[in-house]
Amino acid sequence: MALISAFTPVFGAVLCGIIAFFFFRTSWRSESSSGQNPPRTSGESSRPWVDEDLQDDTEISGKDNEDDDWTVSETENLPHVPYSPPRYSEEEMMERSQQFFTLLNQRRSVRFISPEPVPRDIIHNVIRAAGTAPSGAHTEPWTFVVVGDSETKHRIREIVEEEEEINYKQRMGDKWVNDLRRLRTNWVKEYLDTAPYLILVFKQTYGVLPDGKKKTHYYNEISVSISCGLLLAALQNVGLVTVTTTPLNCGPQLRLLLRRPANEKLLMLLPVGYPSPDATVPDLTRKQLDDLMVFV
Amino acid sequence: MALISAFTPVFGAVLCGIIAFFFFRTSWRSESSSGQNPPRTSGESSRPWVDEDLQDDTEISGKDNEDDDWTVSETENLPHVPYSPPRYSEEEMMERSQQFFTLLNQRRSVRFISPEPVPRDIIHNVIRAAGTAPSGAHTEPWTFVVVGDSETKHRIREIVEEEEEINYKQRMGDKWVNDLRRLRTNWVKEYLDTAPYLILVFKQTYGVLPDGKKKTHYYNEISVSISCGLLLAALQNVGLVTVTTTPLNCGPQLRLLLRRPANEKLLMLLPVGYPSPDATVPDLTRKQLDDLMVFV
Repeated sequence: MALISAFTPVFGAVLCGIIAFFFFRTSWRSESSSGQNPPRTSGESSRPWVDEDLQDDTEISGKDNEDDDWTVSETENLPHVPYSPPRYSEEEMMERSQQFFTLLNQRRSVRFISPEPVPRDIIHNVIRAAGTAPSGAHTEPWTFVVVGDSETKHRIREIVEEEEEINYKQRMGDKWVNDLRRLRTNWVKEYLDTAPYLILVFKQTYGVLPDGKKKTHYYNEISVSISCGLLLAALQNVGLVTVTTTPLNCGPQLRLLLRRPANEKLLMLLPVGYPSPDATVPDLTRKQLDDLMVFV
Repeated sequence: MALISAFTPVFGAVLCGIIAFFFFRTSWRSESSSGQNPPRTSGESSRPWVDEDLQDDTEISGKDNEDDDWTVSETENLPHVPYSPPRYSEEEMMERSQQFFTLLNQRRSVRFISPEPVPRDIIHNVIRAAGTAPSGAHTEPWTFVVVGDSETKHRIREIVEEEEEINYKQRMGDKWVNDLRRLRTNWVKEYLDTAPYLILVFKQTYGVLPDGKKKTHYYNEISVSISCGLLLAALQNVGLVTVTTTPLNCGPQLRLLLRRPANEKLLMLLPVGYPSPDATVPDLTRKQLDDLMVFV
């Protein structure tokens, strides 16, 4: 009886100890992942991702390139050369800026793409244009995989549609009042077969140096996204259409299908071609200057 | 005594219950943040950032827009209209693609910017061009703050240089053999005073609906980066220069200085103007097509 009554306070103490342990452990975890003490590095520390594939490297934070200026570091040891680009008169600048805005403003995302072939050399120049983007420390962390082969395009379509169908069916479980037909339209990606080219844009999350060590690719996602902006402008410039898609859950499967290395992650998939004759787009509007810009 | 002995098994059961509760809670948390069972949503779940400022919202993963296709969801209920952009002959396409690549290939990041004034209307068109970018669910999650006021530019310079100087002095502690002069050059950002305009690009990490609820801004960082690509192309098109800088540690201070709301985060700072007459650039080379592209 004395033994039994001795256990009760012991149990109580153990109970309190365990509660305290778990409590402090969970609050430490939430603190470090919420970044309350941000490290003094720029770069890509702590950037988890939905892909299982991506444990690699986005946690490397190098102190080498804390400078916010992308041109420094790697390029510091290169000789500098004079730079003196074309200069236009103010009237020319005004006209050019208006024409360029008009051109880009006509660009829309288009899912109805004609199977009509497009000369490959044009695509080459579009890719070259994308490759002129700035990048953190001039790492140029991009790979553009251009798929013209029908079988491969079809395999890509199968992978993407399978993933999308799962997504939508899960949603149907939650929102059963949805229009079935609308959902089916959304997971069928005919353009993946019909478009003459699929451009899969991969970001290189890190590089590999000659000695085998990893090379940090600072701001690789921002850099590759900027590059995609140039790619979209280049496509619009020649009258080709595309739609920006981000089938990231399929990223690992597509990486393996296209035999890209482990440091590459799919960022975007762009089907490219002429618009089909009956192509339509949602009748949306863009923000006006007042909503885009604040002038100080 | 009977009462005391009755408590012991009760304590034991409570103890086990509490241990089990905390155990499952922590393992659920680590599972969802490491993505081992990736949520079936695309979007920006679990994306911490270096800014203290950013607790807001990048963890919201909406099931609304699981589609990888950016045009769906919000735009689904809009009427569709025919889309039929200009079409060029293959020869024209070839020529246009070559000219555009040549134009973009001349673009370099330039830190030596002339104080010569630039007409504001040209900058307006450049911003409008950037605003034509695609965005996740057409959220257009960008704000371009254009600073022409000298005092504000100077304050921006002070903030950025202070942060950079701290960074470099920390590095000096580690690498004391570094050339002092080279380091000093790197943290002095004269262009922040001399450039006629500073364009600070903010990403809206979430929106606010009329009822006050948060609106998810899917892929806001990728969208705003694409928009920056268009902005760089538009600047190059009119003969203006800039350098892509990402002073992210200063993000919160700059946000407050410019009175931007809590949902906006600084993505990039671009000083804009004509190149100074003695401007130089590092003599670097860009990847050739073979290194940019893989053709399947």
